[in-house]
Amino acid sequence: MDQIISRIRAFRDERDWKQFHDPKNLATSIAIEAAELLEEFQWLTGDESMRHAVENREAVSDEIADVAIYLIELADVLEIDLRVAILSKLEKNAVKYPVEKSRGKSTKYTKL
Amino acid sequence: MDQIISRIRAFRDERDWKQFHDPKNLATSIAIEAAELLEEFQWLTGDESMRHAVENREAVSDEIADVAIYLIELADVLEIDLRVAILSKLEKNAVKYPVEKSRGKSTKYTKL
Amino acid sequence: MDQIISRIRAFRDERDWKQFHDPKNLATSIAIEAAELLEEFQWLTGDESMRHAVENREAVSDEIADVAIYLIELADVLEIDLRVAILSKLEKNAVKYPVEKSRGKSTKYTKL
Amino acid sequence: MDQIISRIRAFRDERDWKQFHDPKNLATSIAIEAAELLEEFQWLTGDESMRHAVENREAVSDEIADVAIYLIELADVLEIDLRVAILSKLEKNAVKYPVEKSRGKSTKYTKL
Repeated sequence: MDQIISRIRAFRDERDWKQFHDPKNLATSIAIEAAELLEEFQWLTGDESMRHAVENREAVSDEIADVAIYLIELADVLEIDLRVAILSKLEKNAVKYPVEKSRGKSTKYTKL
Repeated sequence: MDQIISRIRAFRDERDWKQFHDPKNLATSIAIEAAELLEEFQWLTGDESMRHAVENREAVSDEIADVAIYLIELADVLEIDLRVAILSKLEKNAVKYPVEKSRGKSTKYTKL
Repeated sequence: MDQIISRIRAFRDERDWKQFHDPKNLATSIAIEAAELLEEFQWLTGDESMRHAVENREAVSDEIADVAIYLIELADVLEIDLRVAILSKLEKNAVKYPVEKSRGKSTKYTKL
Repeated sequence: MDQIISRIRAFRDERDWKQFHDPKNLATSIAIEAAELLEEFQWLTGDESMRHAVENREAVSDEIADVAIYLIELADVLEIDLRVAILSKLEKNAVKYPVEKSRGKSTKYTKL
């Protein structure tokens, strides 16, 4: 992870792009890249989306990476340890969605 | 990273939610969570967004984590190594945005 | 349409919110509201999404309206006639997706 | 408006695309197109976004139209009168954001 953060920082700083990478612009870019990832599966059913991902592995992998790069950079800019943030949020989600009440129900999902 | 993937899998499987987590639904959830992250900075300027993130560190951290959790799960479902995907995409981006042509120009950005 | 534009302007100007409503912020808000609309159907199948919309008509209607309000305001700010813009784009789409090549194929869709 | 709805229906039905246009897929497409609209303004400041929109009027107009077309179709599929939906939501927003408490404050915005 440290190596990836170093590479992302180097890529940005070689281009002098830090001036554009405030939290709002990074969050905007995460949303834009997330929509491009979703576009891979536009109009497909769930089953078709799995088949599409297998047949277009590199394109899907690249779109996932684009979201990840901006997300890691945003966490880095805010000095948030992504690993800690994820484990902490998983614990909150476990409280929010008790196993016995959530099992097998998509309708139990509410806004995270 | 392996520990985080294990936790995400366990969280999902205890609730029997894998049936809903096809690639399209996961990409949809990534986009929804990305918009919630962006909403933290709605109407703010870039400078204000940094101040807001500092003052609302836990909320912003949680929104970042929500995107990350679904993104890691999508990569896991597709058996994509997120680390490899990121490093590979950074190399492609370096070709797409040569340092000498991109330096200091936000307008040089085009669709990743 | 003129009446709706007047109401949207009045709502904004009574609150002195025009200062925040530049094109980028309006586009950001459109994307945020679009994700809230999508969230109504998160994890559902296509068939379930129709049932959900019928049973939650007011909530879905409100989310559609939220997107529409910001979209109409953005067009208004840019002095774009939304009616003309839509008819013009439909003509372009008709050229891009010829009937004989597109009929019945979701896979023919590419980025609009 | 009736003319526009007729054109959108004709465009879809000539291509036999209604089978793909359930509410979830239409909401997904609205979110994807909203992100493409937002991408027009990626990395720009608010002031720059106005200048960009003026200089790229046709591209921005087309992206606005793409969102509008799917939004109008979704309302049509659900037999929701978009005009009524908008006026009804504006009334709710007026209650939610009282003029005296909201004037000039972007921070008063909360989730619509």
